[in-house]
Amino acid sequence: MKQDIGIGLLGLGVIGSGVANILLNKVDTLTEKVGAPLVLKKILVHDITKKRQVVTDTSLLTTNVEDVIDNPEVDIVIELIGGERPALDYIKQALANGKHVVTANKEVIAKYGYDLLALANKHRTYLRYEASVGSGIPLISSLQHDLAANEISTIYGILNGTTNYVLTKMSQEGLSFSAALQQAQNLGYAEANPSNDIQGTDAAYKLAILSSLAFYTTIDPKDIYCQGISHLEAQDFRYAKEFGYTIKLLAIAKRHGDSIEVRVHPSFIPQWSQLAKVDDVYNAVQIEGDLAGKLIFYGEGAGSLRASSAVIADVLAIAGNVRNMIGNVTEPQINQNLDVQAISELHTRYYFRLKVADRPGVLAQISKALGDNDISISSVIQKESDLTSQTAVLVIMTHRAQEKAVQKALADLHSLELVQEVSNFIRVEA
Amino acid sequence: MKQDIGIGLLGLGVIGSGVANILLNKVDTLTEKVGAPLVLKKILVHDITKKRQVVTDTSLLTTNVEDVIDNPEVDIVIELIGGERPALDYIKQALANGKHVVTANKEVIAKYGYDLLALANKHRTYLRYEASVGSGIPLISSLQHDLAANEISTIYGILNGTTNYVLTKMSQEGLSFSAALQQAQNLGYAEANPSNDIQGTDAAYKLAILSSLAFYTTIDPKDIYCQGISHLEAQDFRYAKEFGYTIKLLAIAKRHGDSIEVRVHPSFIPQWSQLAKVDDVYNAVQIEGDLAGKLIFYGEGAGSLRASSAVIADVLAIAGNVRNMIGNVTEPQINQNLDVQAISELHTRYYFRLKVADRPGVLAQISKALGDNDISISSVIQKESDLTSQTAVLVIMTHRAQEKAVQKALADLHSLELVQEVSNFIRVEA
Repeated sequence: MKQDIGIGLLGLGVIGSGVANILLNKVDTLTEKVGAPLVLKKILVHDITKKRQVVTDTSLLTTNVEDVIDNPEVDIVIELIGGERPALDYIKQALANGKHVVTANKEVIAKYGYDLLALANKHRTYLRYEASVGSGIPLISSLQHDLAANEISTIYGILNGTTNYVLTKMSQEGLSFSAALQQAQNLGYAEANPSNDIQGTDAAYKLAILSSLAFYTTIDPKDIYCQGISHLEAQDFRYAKEFGYTIKLLAIAKRHGDSIEVRVHPSFIPQWSQLAKVDDVYNAVQIEGDLAGKLIFYGEGAGSLRASSAVIADVLAIAGNVRNMIGNVTEPQINQNLDVQAISELHTRYYFRLKVADRPGVLAQISKALGDNDISISSVIQKESDLTSQTAVLVIMTHRAQEKAVQKALADLHSLELVQEVSNFIRVEA
Repeated sequence: MKQDIGIGLLGLGVIGSGVANILLNKVDTLTEKVGAPLVLKKILVHDITKKRQVVTDTSLLTTNVEDVIDNPEVDIVIELIGGERPALDYIKQALANGKHVVTANKEVIAKYGYDLLALANKHRTYLRYEASVGSGIPLISSLQHDLAANEISTIYGILNGTTNYVLTKMSQEGLSFSAALQQAQNLGYAEANPSNDIQGTDAAYKLAILSSLAFYTTIDPKDIYCQGISHLEAQDFRYAKEFGYTIKLLAIAKRHGDSIEVRVHPSFIPQWSQLAKVDDVYNAVQIEGDLAGKLIFYGEGAGSLRASSAVIADVLAIAGNVRNMIGNVTEPQINQNLDVQAISELHTRYYFRLKVADRPGVLAQISKALGDNDISISSVIQKESDLTSQTAVLVIMTHRAQEKAVQKALADLHSLELVQEVSNFIRVEA
């Protein structure tokens, strides 16, 4: 039986400091849980001389990555640098050196998870990444273990706290996108450069990870259709409400036989649905399986403490085995190689907002243009006639239609003389 | 490496049939996940000749429990008989025989879980019981593993689908308790003898299991304060709504230093809270930890498929280790021996409904009686004056008060000549 479990840390930023803090301050309870002490052996930083709140013992710090990942005293490497490089190289090298690896790196796992797990398998080490999606919400382990007997049919996720905060403010307070974003930045919920969040990239990485696990396949994040939230306007939220909906940035994955639908975009969802009630920086994921039915996991998906909860849980799971000298055993790695459906093949309902000439016959022309593309209207609101410009806002909800036809119809509408502007179109999840 | 994993099943009722069905019908995908086939070796039943939909091969059936738990071909015993005896004896004997055990038995785990885990540890076998609480919602594994780095402060659970269905109907449709229960029985959501559900016993077992795990202690279900829902009336739901609340049967556990509060009773909860939106037969558990923050797990907590999801997940987790010949290693078993606080020590807010004489000065007398017991009123509604009997309904919400004082005040109110009836009192969770 091993006497202590050596931990090496890569990165001492916000999450790294949180994790180090817990490893140092909760040492007694963690030791009790593992049955052996977790000892922080070395931490990779950029600058050893920088003033820090945690880890005041500078002998623990190094600027040389080999001191961590080649260190014979280190059993488990925690990678909290983030981003693709050099994190990917460090993880690979650590696994090749026989180290177990825990990471919160969604980009690396989304892009290279399958190969890294194969590498871990080859070297009989563990690779865990619970913090990479939803922080402290146990999503990865639920999919890997608790739902393992299920055939998963759908995943709906609110996976990005920044955008959910912005959308909540737009919906509840009628703020514009830029005002809501500014507020999120003031509160530290959005970064100075928020494009990864706002454009949906962050959510797409997370969806790639969840859906790869759920469907036993590899999904390249590049294959996920991804649309951000910056084109939404306050009036879209008002119309959504009138129709009984709200707007959320949803990450959606659905299985259809041998192919899957994976997409991230703003969606109308019914006000009565559980996900519609997920506000502010909270995340939630709804997973539907043939046995478990519809499950929802809800919690805060960001922040140093939340991520630390997942990172330390992963460390504890590995540490128990390290203590008992149980190496990872070769796990069956299943890859069903499912096809990702093109967005043009999507069938769903749609919301359109148009600016049209306020003249008789306009609705007839528009519904003809839609009908010619096999799109039928479910409801219409005409509002806000502007007497000066003689224009009106026309808001349309369609029945189920195909995306390809919708794109064609939008082009057709655009070319109608009576249509001044196709102001927005949003997919509807019913 | 082991070539196949032998499964023995105790019980072929609703859940047992579901589990057998999945083991037989999903054999290919389960084999792929484990890396070796799961083979159903023997099933204990009452009556071999009974006509069945699943398990048509009667050579698999036996009425002799030893054929399952002493069977050298059986690696994992699944106990789905339910109830305390003989299930407890069978589980003990199976563990002592070196079998791994998976059970959905909340009563046995609530009452004897700690000792059974010690027995499993001693014989280096696994004992898993995910299905015992919330069926397919991954609560047990989340507490055991994913939240292991957290200090848990509170658990709020809607843990019984039958009562939640009844309360939903009373709230949404204004039904009486008995009419709502009748409806639940007609739909198969409530048993012919629903007392375990209605009286809160079922929820108390589940709370004992969750809070023992969360607080690393042993909680005897007998020590859990438990009040059922049969005293609730439709008007309580109407008044709750007026105050901005709804009524749920909550299972509550809170840690206060070295003692814990564990109780099951109907509670007012704010309409805006996530748990207030958990309707019908759905279950939900809110767990708050120092690192993970507030997490909510939501899903259907009953039914054969839901339970099978958890049972098979437990089987798969064990099977992976059986295949690789990894026996269970002695896990540290932590028991903090926390004290259970008496209900009389509880501090919370309260709702009272009284029938009083419709005369001047009545409110003054009542508020004096409450004030004498250090209870201050937060709001009052006086309604439904009955001119014939000259009585009125008085509904009171208090500020935080101690349960002991509230019980004393209720007795004092009872003795007031102006108070005809203390019709109900319900605790408020804000």
